[in-house]
Amino acid sequence: MRILRTASNLNQAVRRARAGGARIGFVPTMGYLHDGHLALVRAAREECDLVVASIFVNPLQFAAGEDLAKYPRDLPRDHRLLRKADVDLLFEPENFYPEGFATRVSVERLGERLCGRYRPGHFVGVSTVVTKLLAAAEPDRLYLGRKDYQQAMILTRMVADLNLPVRVVICPTVREADGLAMSSRNVYLTPEERAWAPNFYRALRATALLIESGEVRGAGEATAEVERRLLGSPMRLQYAEALTADDLAPIDPLTGDLVLAAAVFLGKARLIDNVAVRAPRPPRPGKKNDRGRRV
Amino acid sequence: MRILRTASNLNQAVRRARAGGARIGFVPTMGYLHDGHLALVRAAREECDLVVASIFVNPLQFAAGEDLAKYPRDLPRDHRLLRKADVDLLFEPENFYPEGFATRVSVERLGERLCGRYRPGHFVGVSTVVTKLLAAAEPDRLYLGRKDYQQAMILTRMVADLNLPVRVVICPTVREADGLAMSSRNVYLTPEERAWAPNFYRALRATALLIESGEVRGAGEATAEVERRLLGSPMRLQYAEALTADDLAPIDPLTGDLVLAAAVFLGKARLIDNVAVRAPRPPRPGKKNDRGRRV
Repeated sequence: MRILRTASNLNQAVRRARAGGARIGFVPTMGYLHDGHLALVRAAREECDLVVASIFVNPLQFAAGEDLAKYPRDLPRDHRLLRKADVDLLFEPENFYPEGFATRVSVERLGERLCGRYRPGHFVGVSTVVTKLLAAAEPDRLYLGRKDYQQAMILTRMVADLNLPVRVVICPTVREADGLAMSSRNVYLTPEERAWAPNFYRALRATALLIESGEVRGAGEATAEVERRLLGSPMRLQYAEALTADDLAPIDPLTGDLVLAAAVFLGKARLIDNVAVRAPRPPRPGKKNDRGRRV
Repeated sequence: MRILRTASNLNQAVRRARAGGARIGFVPTMGYLHDGHLALVRAAREECDLVVASIFVNPLQFAAGEDLAKYPRDLPRDHRLLRKADVDLLFEPENFYPEGFATRVSVERLGERLCGRYRPGHFVGVSTVVTKLLAAAEPDRLYLGRKDYQQAMILTRMVADLNLPVRVVICPTVREADGLAMSSRNVYLTPEERAWAPNFYRALRATALLIESGEVRGAGEATAEVERRLLGSPMRLQYAEALTADDLAPIDPLTGDLVLAAAVFLGKARLIDNVAVRAPRPPRPGKKNDRGRRV
């Protein structure tokens, strides 16, 4: 595994491989790797000839007062894991935002709800850094985890909008045996908090089932249901929203392909998770509208 | 000359050429070509193996009420000129902003003064479309004209910030024999207005000389001098500003490498032009500060 620290060095290495016919897969990370990251690497390894990963704790995506300074880091361990996973090139950019840096990439609408409402500037930071990483790595495939669902939708939209020649591959959330979604931030949990944490996913799953069975039909009801299921735990809900799966648009009553996404505070950690939900279509309209478009 | 209409077709053609070792030059235009555009093509032709041009009247860079609908077009003539100039690939994107398009690329600060103050959203439209064009054409060199000086500075900054693997080449403004900067919008001028138009460049040149000789030292004075020199003509000054050459930052008194840039209305046309100015350094400070940084 070769470690590169400048965009131009990475770009040269990638272009050399491409000239030789290699398909390039890219896995961007902020390090402190867990099995969710490694699943992305495995997918890239399976589908591509050259696997590029990056480790960069991107200051641009942390709002003031967030955990940038104390974001967990363990580079020697990350290197070991990536080597073992057979990564070819590791990009650890240095001076990635030089003096006078002034460019921002933003995606309207998709970034406004869910986490975007509570982390001002976060997704602009994500879109900007990923544009830079893609410009350097020029991959054929970009591997993202479904745990960061809103991020994945925003980057998918951005890639399409900017016609970046890369295919976005979204891999399933990797979970601990008890259901907790893997996250570098889980390290912030005390053992007691860690024992409570799986309730978060359970609350989402249970609410998703109620939506799917038609028992919960209202958007507000879905939010309340998640909240209710976290009562009595040390978790404080920041948001829970059932939105359309692709556009992350509000919909009420709940119908069609949705995502139920939420964030909770638990001790020093802020955890996010989401589940796919297929809400029942509305009752069939009368014959007159039989072939009309149903909303 | 091959004409391509989708980003992916262009990208495939370019990558094929690159695999064969070609250096790729790219000239983005809005069509209705004049010798300024063709000078960019000639520069690309001299320095590159594969020359890609684009014609796209980018709706995103026109503010409401601007001349998008009546922007001059003559595709058959453009094709003839580009063929004659030995362009290899011409990109004429179709459906470049599909339904739901939501991504914007912006460059802070540099886009706020000069034209940016009077054309809200203009430079965001430019940065966004050029990011898309560069993603499709993946050129080694991007050729821009100095006439659109602020645009060239913004795109240079954007390319550096996003570490796009392309070198920006800025070519001199091409002028008519009487000094008028070539522009597709000159076609809006009546013969009488056309006869007045060279006074614009003359006013900038004359003011630049006064700055260089030290007769004009104040930023406000420079603006007033350009305005004074247009009095009695049918031109109405929109702005004239002497700014630092690279950052387009205000500076007063005027010292060092500057650009004097201005916009005027003349009949139905809005014309822009600019000249480089080297203003005298301030008088040498006493010995104590001799080696200090002079502002």
